[in-house]
Amino acid sequence: MSTSVKHGEGSAVLLVFAAVSVALITILSVWKLKHFKYKLINETGGAMFYGMLLGLTVRFLWCDGGERIQSMCSCRGLNGTHHILMVNITSHGCSYRHAGKLNQKYTLVQTPSHKETFDPEVLFNLFLPPIIFHGAYTLNQKRFTGNLGSILTYAFMGTIISCVCIGVSIYGFTRLIVLLGQAADGEFVLTDCLLFGAIMSATDPVSVLGLLTELRVDLDLHTLLFGESVLNDAVAIVLTRAITTYSQMGAGHTFDPAAFLHSLGMFLGVLVGSFFLGFIFTVITALLTKFTRLHENPLLETSVFFLLSWSSFLSAEAGGLSGIVAVLFCGLSQARYTNLNLSCDGRARTKQLFEVFNFLGEIFIFSYMGYTLLTFPRHVFKALFIAGAFLSIFISRACNIYPLSFLLNLGRTHKIPRSFQHFMVFAGLRGAIAFGLAARDVSTDVRRTIFTTTLLVVCFTIWVLGMAADPMLRHLDIRVGVDADESLHDLSSDLSSEVGTGRPDTTQGLWHRLDYKYLKPLLTHCGPPLTDSLPQCCGVFARIFSSPHVQEDEEQLCEIENDDSTFVLEETKLQPVSEGGDSRSEHQDDLLEGDLGLGSVPVHVREA
Amino acid sequence: MSTSVKHGEGSAVLLVFAAVSVALITILSVWKLKHFKYKLINETGGAMFYGMLLGLTVRFLWCDGGERIQSMCSCRGLNGTHHILMVNITSHGCSYRHAGKLNQKYTLVQTPSHKETFDPEVLFNLFLPPIIFHGAYTLNQKRFTGNLGSILTYAFMGTIISCVCIGVSIYGFTRLIVLLGQAADGEFVLTDCLLFGAIMSATDPVSVLGLLTELRVDLDLHTLLFGESVLNDAVAIVLTRAITTYSQMGAGHTFDPAAFLHSLGMFLGVLVGSFFLGFIFTVITALLTKFTRLHENPLLETSVFFLLSWSSFLSAEAGGLSGIVAVLFCGLSQARYTNLNLSCDGRARTKQLFEVFNFLGEIFIFSYMGYTLLTFPRHVFKALFIAGAFLSIFISRACNIYPLSFLLNLGRTHKIPRSFQHFMVFAGLRGAIAFGLAARDVSTDVRRTIFTTTLLVVCFTIWVLGMAADPMLRHLDIRVGVDADESLHDLSSDLSSEVGTGRPDTTQGLWHRLDYKYLKPLLTHCGPPLTDSLPQCCGVFARIFSSPHVQEDEEQLCEIENDDSTFVLEETKLQPVSEGGDSRSEHQDDLLEGDLGLGSVPVHVREA
Repeated sequence: MSTSVKHGEGSAVLLVFAAVSVALITILSVWKLKHFKYKLINETGGAMFYGMLLGLTVRFLWCDGGERIQSMCSCRGLNGTHHILMVNITSHGCSYRHAGKLNQKYTLVQTPSHKETFDPEVLFNLFLPPIIFHGAYTLNQKRFTGNLGSILTYAFMGTIISCVCIGVSIYGFTRLIVLLGQAADGEFVLTDCLLFGAIMSATDPVSVLGLLTELRVDLDLHTLLFGESVLNDAVAIVLTRAITTYSQMGAGHTFDPAAFLHSLGMFLGVLVGSFFLGFIFTVITALLTKFTRLHENPLLETSVFFLLSWSSFLSAEAGGLSGIVAVLFCGLSQARYTNLNLSCDGRARTKQLFEVFNFLGEIFIFSYMGYTLLTFPRHVFKALFIAGAFLSIFISRACNIYPLSFLLNLGRTHKIPRSFQHFMVFAGLRGAIAFGLAARDVSTDVRRTIFTTTLLVVCFTIWVLGMAADPMLRHLDIRVGVDADESLHDLSSDLSSEVGTGRPDTTQGLWHRLDYKYLKPLLTHCGPPLTDSLPQCCGVFARIFSSPHVQEDEEQLCEIENDDSTFVLEETKLQPVSEGGDSRSEHQDDLLEGDLGLGSVPVHVREA
Repeated sequence: MSTSVKHGEGSAVLLVFAAVSVALITILSVWKLKHFKYKLINETGGAMFYGMLLGLTVRFLWCDGGERIQSMCSCRGLNGTHHILMVNITSHGCSYRHAGKLNQKYTLVQTPSHKETFDPEVLFNLFLPPIIFHGAYTLNQKRFTGNLGSILTYAFMGTIISCVCIGVSIYGFTRLIVLLGQAADGEFVLTDCLLFGAIMSATDPVSVLGLLTELRVDLDLHTLLFGESVLNDAVAIVLTRAITTYSQMGAGHTFDPAAFLHSLGMFLGVLVGSFFLGFIFTVITALLTKFTRLHENPLLETSVFFLLSWSSFLSAEAGGLSGIVAVLFCGLSQARYTNLNLSCDGRARTKQLFEVFNFLGEIFIFSYMGYTLLTFPRHVFKALFIAGAFLSIFISRACNIYPLSFLLNLGRTHKIPRSFQHFMVFAGLRGAIAFGLAARDVSTDVRRTIFTTTLLVVCFTIWVLGMAADPMLRHLDIRVGVDADESLHDLSSDLSSEVGTGRPDTTQGLWHRLDYKYLKPLLTHCGPPLTDSLPQCCGVFARIFSSPHVQEDEEQLCEIENDDSTFVLEETKLQPVSEGGDSRSEHQDDLLEGDLGLGSVPVHVREA
């Protein structure tokens, strides 16, 4: 092995070592701060701060580091039209001479110095999937399905509104920049601005969750905010991809209906395709854990669960879909079905495994963001663009939350109060997904402007909004320090007179019938037997997939576990896990879910 | 981003997806086999088999895969003396033209196709450290220290004997090869043969542990074999490095005293340096967990523990020492000290986290070995060398175990029976470390011969010896199916009349005094107060580092936990964890350890 490769590896080891040290310092100092009841700074903010310190150190102590990155980036900037690249690589950088221009088969040469920086793709492929999976997996199933309609409305409609709002208002600012002569006309086209809008629409579940869990806010607000921030990532990712496709196809200046339809089709195709891929891997995992005795060995159970969930990401990426979106839906459905088939030990192990991945991944990503802010050599700071971005993210958030909440409240009996709406507007923290989307392409000046601005918005929202959340909650008079168990217990005792006949009302939505009558019996040991719910013609199928050992008490057990387990995942820091203490039945769950998620049922039930 | 890089990433994703699928199939099929009481094939053998199937598929279905690897390897074969490399990279391979020969500053260019194979360095840097750490961390502390002397003798003396034996006998075979005209004179020098000897001396803890745990063999045999296989890795790694250094310095044909002394110094330096580095990180972790309230948050506890243990690896690699050796000693000492400071939940999480890493890493490594066996394009099969290797590994194993056991039995009251010795000779399975050491350099024909032969030896020992282990144990009449708890209980009840005065006998070895009087009180809440054991002049130091809350009952708690916890780690598959059921005191531990690990005390105590 040549010395320079060794050298490259040595640097990589040093960088990883630095990252590990930053993570350690972050954990210890933030934890120490919390210990002194100073809860305003959480891990994400701390990690970003120490990442910036590391970046500063690298920048000043190890000056040629920047040069190397510079040269690497300029190498990247070359396009692939050169026949033979004459590579003259010294320890200080690299220069290219073009020896010919015959055809396009010849690819870019990457120098060993490339090893000395993290690839943002590593973020997307290594650290983000477990974080997103963990976010989806730990959503409180009961409250999530109870608020599903509202969450979906915020996530889908809201993200599109937000994207358009930010896009249009930032486009206004870019016109101003052009008018003031700070940019050439045609440098920023509308699609660039919409792309920035899509990137900025992804509110971050990592920092939002950190915030909400730390402050133990009202659980309905928790679910709405967290559910929205998890799901709008999916929409933002696919939207970004669709806009990129559109701008690559059309000229960008004029509206191109064909390209628009193509990218619309792509948006829907990738979203639905990734959703189904994630779900398929859940079906495989659920059937495996249902029909085999894997639960006798929790280590195998956890390993299989982990590998299959990871497969959903990998197969989506390999198939040209969005891995993050697939893993998100996989997490949601694994929590709803497979989780019921796991043994207690397996469930605890799985939860703890993803908790560690999530925690460490979060710290690495945020410290990497801080590091990049100070070491990325070609930041493009455009003051007006940045000002526009800050203004438009608040405007778009307001345009998204208030009107949608108004519309939703028309259908909800259990209204979303004004104070919740204010806090939801306020809590639009941006984080890893926005950063990752912006970092995927920094080849042009426009994309670098977007990247720099995104980094600044992320820093600002994480630090300033993150620190102001606690005072804001007090100002808005929103309940904090809620005990999850107690609150669940309230909900359950409210419902205690309503233990129903066992079957969901047939007027309830399609989804709940599908879920209760077909998916649960197919994928878990719970629910009515498949032989009852499926038509006669599917008798063989029903018998094959019916649970081999459905028993009344086992069913009861499933329900108990289902009620609490996923919920407890989120609250694990707050109190010890209390399992099996709550014995309300699955049917309540279905009653709760029976309002298409508009949140009307709890009150409806209370009124009954 | 250029298309080819995208393409490379796509292939990488596909390859990872294939690896994940292989892991899944391995887990499920081996588990299914075990379910049918067919215990002969364990995960490692299964993983290797499926890896070979994958390799076969890749080789036949995707023919150009091999060519790409070929071209990558031949690119690597170039040394760094060319001034300008004219790189002509097509999708099928790459060709190099040397444009000049001015100086040595110009480095090798790596093509994107490089991404399509795993780098064996990834094995060493990503998968092996947690496996080795887990192996060291789960060693039964009590029995390990009880047999420390014997284990160290086997690991150090044994590995050196084995290395020399294999080296000399394989040198004989290479002379035969030269005589038969199948190789040029001077192709194989003695240092190459010794290098092969060092590589082959690393018996594999992964497969050995799989074997022993599956069959639940006698616990003394378990400890001796597992302890030896963990520690001899360290010796073999450092020995390989020393021999490589020697052969790089000297001509290889003649004895060079200066080079010998240099490499001897390097051997000792790297071994001792890595040991201390591993220990330093344990000291940091232990002090952190002792003096802070990290145990209030098991997630933080586990994360800090994980990061600091990983740091021992990274800092050793960054400092030019051996990361694997550092992480091994770190694991051993973390189990002995830090483990006592963790909360119950933290301990369980840490254990489970490393268990998952170990399990998955093991499967990936062994399937990668199988994959490499069939896809590595430049295997060099030399029949006589291979025959010599198979013969010499058995001869060397016999030359190592029998004489050393004889010598050890002179000092041990609790003799190592003949049947144990036979089984230890038999159970010299080779695995990941041997493979990794061989794979680190495949630049010359000799190294490729070594690599190919190593792969074959690994396959043979894993499959044939692994499958024959059960019949062999029955043939040798060695107890299998031993209940760990029961056996421990026996040991403890044998000792129950011996609950001593509390202080270790001053005639006991230096190590035990150091451990009991200084290290335990310094790093944990157990043992006598530092203010008692340290001299008066160290009063301030003693007061600072004395446990802030040493209490009699707490000490008792520590001891209980210490007795069982690490032991239970290994046996987790066999039975549920029973904590705190055993209440023999630390002093018994020390009595047990008091024979410098020659294993004489249990019988001595029984006689008393």
